[in-house]
Amino acid sequence: MRILVVNVNTTTSITESIGKQAEAAASADTEIVGLTPSFGAESVEGNYESHLAAIAVMERVRAYPEPFDAIIQAGYGEHGREGLQELFDVPVVDITEAAASTAQFLGRTYSVVTSLDRTVPLIEDRLTLAGLSSRCASVRASGMAVLDLERDPQAAVDAIAEQAVSAVRDDRAEVICLGCGGMSGLAERVVERTGAPVVDGVTAAVTIAESLVRLQLKTSKVRTYASRRSKNMTDWPPPQPKA
Amino acid sequence: MRILVVNVNTTTSITESIGKQAEAAASADTEIVGLTPSFGAESVEGNYESHLAAIAVMERVRAYPEPFDAIIQAGYGEHGREGLQELFDVPVVDITEAAASTAQFLGRTYSVVTSLDRTVPLIEDRLTLAGLSSRCASVRASGMAVLDLERDPQAAVDAIAEQAVSAVRDDRAEVICLGCGGMSGLAERVVERTGAPVVDGVTAAVTIAESLVRLQLKTSKVRTYASRRSKNMTDWPPPQPKA
Amino acid sequence: MRILVVNVNTTTSITESIGKQAEAAASADTEIVGLTPSFGAESVEGNYESHLAAIAVMERVRAYPEPFDAIIQAGYGEHGREGLQELFDVPVVDITEAAASTAQFLGRTYSVVTSLDRTVPLIEDRLTLAGLSSRCASVRASGMAVLDLERDPQAAVDAIAEQAVSAVRDDRAEVICLGCGGMSGLAERVVERTGAPVVDGVTAAVTIAESLVRLQLKTSKVRTYASRRSKNMTDWPPPQPKA
Amino acid sequence: MRILVVNVNTTTSITESIGKQAEAAASADTEIVGLTPSFGAESVEGNYESHLAAIAVMERVRAYPEPFDAIIQAGYGEHGREGLQELFDVPVVDITEAAASTAQFLGRTYSVVTSLDRTVPLIEDRLTLAGLSSRCASVRASGMAVLDLERDPQAAVDAIAEQAVSAVRDDRAEVICLGCGGMSGLAERVVERTGAPVVDGVTAAVTIAESLVRLQLKTSKVRTYASRRSKNMTDWPPPQPKA
Amino acid sequence: MRILVVNVNTTTSITESIGKQAEAAASADTEIVGLTPSFGAESVEGNYESHLAAIAVMERVRAYPEPFDAIIQAGYGEHGREGLQELFDVPVVDITEAAASTAQFLGRTYSVVTSLDRTVPLIEDRLTLAGLSSRCASVRASGMAVLDLERDPQAAVDAIAEQAVSAVRDDRAEVICLGCGGMSGLAERVVERTGAPVVDGVTAAVTIAESLVRLQLKTSKVRTYASRRSKNMTDWPPPQPKA
Amino acid sequence: MRILVVNVNTTTSITESIGKQAEAAASADTEIVGLTPSFGAESVEGNYESHLAAIAVMERVRAYPEPFDAIIQAGYGEHGREGLQELFDVPVVDITEAAASTAQFLGRTYSVVTSLDRTVPLIEDRLTLAGLSSRCASVRASGMAVLDLERDPQAAVDAIAEQAVSAVRDDRAEVICLGCGGMSGLAERVVERTGAPVVDGVTAAVTIAESLVRLQLKTSKVRTYASRRSKNMTDWPPPQPKA
Repeated sequence: MRILVVNVNTTTSITESIGKQAEAAASADTEIVGLTPSFGAESVEGNYESHLAAIAVMERVRAYPEPFDAIIQAGYGEHGREGLQELFDVPVVDITEAAASTAQFLGRTYSVVTSLDRTVPLIEDRLTLAGLSSRCASVRASGMAVLDLERDPQAAVDAIAEQAVSAVRDDRAEVICLGCGGMSGLAERVVERTGAPVVDGVTAAVTIAESLVRLQLKTSKVRTYASRRSKNMTDWPPPQPKA
Repeated sequence: MRILVVNVNTTTSITESIGKQAEAAASADTEIVGLTPSFGAESVEGNYESHLAAIAVMERVRAYPEPFDAIIQAGYGEHGREGLQELFDVPVVDITEAAASTAQFLGRTYSVVTSLDRTVPLIEDRLTLAGLSSRCASVRASGMAVLDLERDPQAAVDAIAEQAVSAVRDDRAEVICLGCGGMSGLAERVVERTGAPVVDGVTAAVTIAESLVRLQLKTSKVRTYASRRSKNMTDWPPPQPKA
Repeated sequence: MRILVVNVNTTTSITESIGKQAEAAASADTEIVGLTPSFGAESVEGNYESHLAAIAVMERVRAYPEPFDAIIQAGYGEHGREGLQELFDVPVVDITEAAASTAQFLGRTYSVVTSLDRTVPLIEDRLTLAGLSSRCASVRASGMAVLDLERDPQAAVDAIAEQAVSAVRDDRAEVICLGCGGMSGLAERVVERTGAPVVDGVTAAVTIAESLVRLQLKTSKVRTYASRRSKNMTDWPPPQPKA
Repeated sequence: MRILVVNVNTTTSITESIGKQAEAAASADTEIVGLTPSFGAESVEGNYESHLAAIAVMERVRAYPEPFDAIIQAGYGEHGREGLQELFDVPVVDITEAAASTAQFLGRTYSVVTSLDRTVPLIEDRLTLAGLSSRCASVRASGMAVLDLERDPQAAVDAIAEQAVSAVRDDRAEVICLGCGGMSGLAERVVERTGAPVVDGVTAAVTIAESLVRLQLKTSKVRTYASRRSKNMTDWPPPQPKA
Repeated sequence: MRILVVNVNTTTSITESIGKQAEAAASADTEIVGLTPSFGAESVEGNYESHLAAIAVMERVRAYPEPFDAIIQAGYGEHGREGLQELFDVPVVDITEAAASTAQFLGRTYSVVTSLDRTVPLIEDRLTLAGLSSRCASVRASGMAVLDLERDPQAAVDAIAEQAVSAVRDDRAEVICLGCGGMSGLAERVVERTGAPVVDGVTAAVTIAESLVRLQLKTSKVRTYASRRSKNMTDWPPPQPKA
Repeated sequence: MRILVVNVNTTTSITESIGKQAEAAASADTEIVGLTPSFGAESVEGNYESHLAAIAVMERVRAYPEPFDAIIQAGYGEHGREGLQELFDVPVVDITEAAASTAQFLGRTYSVVTSLDRTVPLIEDRLTLAGLSSRCASVRASGMAVLDLERDPQAAVDAIAEQAVSAVRDDRAEVICLGCGGMSGLAERVVERTGAPVVDGVTAAVTIAESLVRLQLKTSKVRTYASRRSKNMTDWPPPQPKA
């Protein structure tokens, strides 16, 4: 099967990093296709950028020319999953929800450790709408920006591990979800420091997407995600700027 | 003061209709400026179109060249209010929330009557995130599409009034919010049929926006809506297609 | 239009102070009428006094001889709003709910800073019943009694500002509601210290009452606030003691 | 021990009827004292009357000259319990809460069947604030006014039993709480028709009050119900009208 | 009347201690019968032991040869109450729920102080399912194991009182529920230290069970606790090992 | 990897049927081991039987002599998952939660269709504790007993499909979870009748268990599921009756 893993940032090194994580979790016969949006912010950290990423991710998938079996939206706390479910029949898995769903099988409560404080509300809103907040002990910010995570991995590990330790000790979390992408070795370090299982959203999403495909399950079209009605569209999609 | 009232649909007759409603509710010294997105769907009825409208509305306001005092997002149940609050300091009022907030001052519970069944979940999600759902008795669909409301006003009034009557009788609603724009005379007809107060989102939003401006209140920038960080953007905004 | 602003305390200097705040927020053609209950506690700080104020406020409005367009109940966290809505058709606005409703348009969460610890539960209960608690980050007490706020304004400002700072920093509040009346300059000081918008209940209530009147909206009479049934009453109202 | 059972209506025949119910449930060594408020409505059915009854009940208990061990507020869905808890140290038991608490030991869910539709919201609010609503399947109105229950007991039984049957069948209630006072034989009839246990608030409250007294438990004074602060009161209590 | 008080631990000294507490609270004409499960853990502290105790308690009651009027399950936060309600018609009272229900009549919020941290989640789950969690301020662990409570009562009192003080001061609890059995004098000590009422689950349960019996109320059999269907059982109950 | 799939009923034909379903969903290199409890009810339909099954399932797994990688508890709405998580380190997946978690990736809401009305509360309780109830539209009973499902598959399909149709139409479910085991072809028939995706708990659980194993995730031992303390046990496990 082929799974599209769509980055929400326009930074291609993040797409590569996410792709590698995804491949590590994928079955032998699964093809992972990493996609980068053709427009938007180099790193998505806030409301405007997240709304823009929502539509950029949808357009990127619409432009993909080959058949595919599932879509993973690889942004933590970002908008747009509902649109993908409406546009396509194949399963759509958001990594925020994938991580939380997986964590709920491992412990009674979980916490998310993410990058900046400003992204905490976006993650909380996604969990609320997904019905996954009642077992969420906390969403904590490490204070590291998305691109800093790539630039200084050691500082990132330390900042994230510190918040994870506080989540287990003070918020009574039993599982940690990493609300940030692309760091090899991060999970292992947080496990060492906390003694709690650590769930990475991308790898969790890969196994869920594979499972849904294997079970031949598709997005329900009976109401919320029913196919679009025919519409006149104005000036969208825009002319391809780079072409 | 000047208030921008932004349509989420690209149909200009709807912008005009909304603008008239807004003007009827505005104070004498308030200037209402109706804006139409430069791209997107003629009528927004679903997730993809709503996500697209979110960014189209933001770009339209960003392109507006004059100063202004408040923004009204005139789409019922649409995405994007958080992005506007992040981009601008002036108050941002979403008509979904304006109607519900106003209704809560008039009765113990309220129901929303909207257009199509597929928009019900979007409205419910907005009310949930806005913390306005605990007194919401129901969100009901009339089965009329947005453009049908304009094409056949009499049928629309009948379909909407029927749902409003059911909301008061069966769902124990005490106030009705009209979850659809631009119909003169609609509110009066629903009041006649139900005996319950009827709140129109656009007019409610105008009075709320004026109030916030008069009280010199602005969007909080301490966390969720803090100004954007400086970012490299790829191919956005797109080249102006029409120019 | 004429708006009755009813103090819950029998202290007339508080009525005057509230009246001035209300007038500062009112439109030019709005007449603010400050009313003081004819019986009850000099300052309402607890359950018995609040229940007594509820009925004293209702009787005071019933005794008002002129027509009026709206009623503001100017006590934070007090009982009785439902009774006023039942007795009259015009809009009734409680300042607790007015402040919270207004705050919700300005930030994702809000906190209330009030006078004594014993009034915190009353405010929390009002917010719960009003469906306005899910975005309430906290209700904090400054430890200042109502009359102390008048006697030592500087100490009051300090105590209140300190709690507001904690609310923003520790409770993740983005907006502060002042749960106590009548202090000029207080809001400005708290804004300076917290960087967050500060909402005063009385001024918020004035703009909401004006808005409802302008939109010709009245209290729903379909169930909860239906007019009273005809009843035999025993020894009520009491003989006018002072007359 | 001596338990004060306070009617909320000024109709003395209801006080007598409630007193008899209470005595039937009381232990041999318990003295039941029925009290009637000295002012207010002959039957309490709505917000204004309920707020008035709150203070009338408190004044009536304050005027009672002998020592007592517990207070039962014998109005379903009425205001004022918090004020009694503040004024006195002895346990205060509201019959709405007594019935619900008792019902929760007998089945997974319960419904309340009350008199008029307009009292449903008052009962729901009491249950919400008491933290007893999550297992409440429904609050249903029989359409019988309080005084009609006395005037035409047979019609009352039929109307109430009909709603109880619907609650068990349609709302999945497993226990019925009678939200109206003073009808001998009513409970038996509803049990016969529904097969579900039926809880009467007054008798439940008597056993709870006795239990709290026997366990030497008193109202907590650490915060919400701390004793009143010393206050200057204006014209309250009123001159005794009848004296 | 005869009330069975069933220990969840197989330690008979705990049964005796619980029995004494129960007798102290019981009416003169009530016979308390303490029962010890015939299999299971000496002290129940965790999920496996609690599930095992659930069935051990049920089997113990099934083996009791005499008639009885009510059952008290004397384990804090343990499984199995639903099974007892299904097997028998007489009222079943769990001490976790009895304590919380009683506390709710005494203050606006309550906290539970229990033994080990690992039992906190079990207690929280019971309160959630019982609909008694919205007024629960916290469930705190003293760090003392069940058997340590018996071995070193003084250390136990200190550890429990310390948590109770924190609950009142930091969690805003107004009543303390003792989530551990069998210590004479414990309640008095915690009252002294906190100023808050202290509820013991066993004594609360005795008065509730007596009340239900006196009111002739039995477990509802309309759905959740309907009598068992006839079934073929495999190798259960097991051969009596000791006989 | 080896996954234990444990039936909660002692009927071995159900174990076989569940095993076949599990194998159909399993990867090529996964070994499915079906286990039948050595004691308990032929079909689990209610509280006592469910509590008994909880411990029977745990003992059955404890008696399994070979290493294994994950455990699936194949009873819908049954007790005991927490005990398994405490006893073992490997992932434990309950089919009730597996089905709901999977359904949440496919539509905005889901309904469960189960066997008898008396099992509805058990399923609702499991979903509540698992934090999976906010998107649950309803739990509906087909009226078919567990063994009837095996005896008359055609009638079962009809009864279940009828409830599924009602769930989609009346309760606004978008996905159906089959709350009963072992019927080949059932899912297909319900899909045909409703147009909604249908999730079977056993197959969903297999893919989730495989995913957790592949991601090397284990049950968190930091609090709720920490390993048992050392205990003296009385007469448990019982002497093997059949040996």
